[in-house]
Amino acid sequence: MSHDTQHQELIRISEIFGPTIQGEGALIGRPTVFVRTGGCDYRCSWCDTLYAVDSMHRADWTQMTPEQILQEVQHLSGGIPLTVSLSGGNPAIQPMQSLIELGNAAGYQFCLETQGSIAKDWFSKLNVLTLSPKPPSSGMETDWNTLKECVEAARSGPGQSPLIILKIVVFDEADYQYAQMAGRLFMDLPVYLQPGNHTPPPASETGKAAAEIDMQGILERMRWLVDRTVRDGWHSATVLPQLHTLLWGNLRGV
Amino acid sequence: MSHDTQHQELIRISEIFGPTIQGEGALIGRPTVFVRTGGCDYRCSWCDTLYAVDSMHRADWTQMTPEQILQEVQHLSGGIPLTVSLSGGNPAIQPMQSLIELGNAAGYQFCLETQGSIAKDWFSKLNVLTLSPKPPSSGMETDWNTLKECVEAARSGPGQSPLIILKIVVFDEADYQYAQMAGRLFMDLPVYLQPGNHTPPPASETGKAAAEIDMQGILERMRWLVDRTVRDGWHSATVLPQLHTLLWGNLRGV
Repeated sequence: MSHDTQHQELIRISEIFGPTIQGEGALIGRPTVFVRTGGCDYRCSWCDTLYAVDSMHRADWTQMTPEQILQEVQHLSGGIPLTVSLSGGNPAIQPMQSLIELGNAAGYQFCLETQGSIAKDWFSKLNVLTLSPKPPSSGMETDWNTLKECVEAARSGPGQSPLIILKIVVFDEADYQYAQMAGRLFMDLPVYLQPGNHTPPPASETGKAAAEIDMQGILERMRWLVDRTVRDGWHSATVLPQLHTLLWGNLRGV
Repeated sequence: MSHDTQHQELIRISEIFGPTIQGEGALIGRPTVFVRTGGCDYRCSWCDTLYAVDSMHRADWTQMTPEQILQEVQHLSGGIPLTVSLSGGNPAIQPMQSLIELGNAAGYQFCLETQGSIAKDWFSKLNVLTLSPKPPSSGMETDWNTLKECVEAARSGPGQSPLIILKIVVFDEADYQYAQMAGRLFMDLPVYLQPGNHTPPPASETGKAAAEIDMQGILERMRWLVDRTVRDGWHSATVLPQLHTLLWGNLRGV
């Protein structure tokens, strides 16, 4: 497929917003613009972005070319390069290669977060690849072989090879055990543990009411997770909350 | 000075606690044991660890040998190596070299946070050096030449050379301007911006009352700082709160 043809490929976009700070994982606190794609092959019980997942919201999604997306990113960021966060839904099911190449040429870097259910060669062109397999509380099942293929694709593809991390949401002890197992299976990947938000926004509501969270409950779960992790002597793990949730609740666009 | 003689040197300790997570800066979320030294050459208006600064608390400080300190760190961490956080007070005024060498030999790594008012050759043996010059709201004046000497000492000393970062507490616009100037003076150092806690614990009180913070005020200042930074297009900065303050207030020992 020629470069030109790739540029014709359309990416299904739920929202593009920022700059704000990345609220999770390895780039926490770093200014970023979010490019959120629409559509997902998973349906996690506690999904906090159903508006980018459930096809009942597809009327709100837009088909955009890589050029159009980069133009919007450049507009929002005032043309000053930063790391773009590709999120979803599952952004791995969209044709992202041209966007990454175009962005790189303009000085932008890319991180992408996916559950690791689909491996793509272009993962290797990312700066950071966050693999976020879903624990038992999600109701989903992990295909560990495909997750391994994601790591291999990122390492052996045509790009410079990204930093690859595992990020696992933990709601309870079963999730914690799952995270430990994942850490053992992928011993060479840094593990980030993140307490879950048990008060995700309802898919059908917007505004102030939908933005409300159980702050005390979220902080309580974070304290438990810190305690659980250090009590185990799991000193290579990193434990971080969803910073944006603490700052802005479930509000969208920040 | 021989290695043996160095081991005789005593370090003035305010507290050793953990493991808990590092709540600030480059290692945010990473399990760590804190070794907090007693005594400081600064007296910041909003100091949140006066019990380790003001000599009226010196009766609570203990003189310990590097071996004793490492023993306590190993005890707390169950002998499982981690990154030890050397903090204060100003830990740079204590003889830390032997502790770092002994710890390294046992698999432990060290990060140290200092205002950068005193440069030491042994900075080069650290894993992470956080230079935290104090902005106008602190009431202190920065000696930029000494701060430069700290960077040079860390880079040219006998060790492997640490990651060096600038971390600047920001309470207001004047502090923000100071941070920008510091960023321009040290263009090759990553800058971390941290909203200040305007409700630090009173030095003379302990327990629940002293642990209380103005959570809404702290979150408000964090949101302002994120907005201020991205509005400027300062995309190389990282903006992070004091995570431990959000989780545990001003409580000590976590």
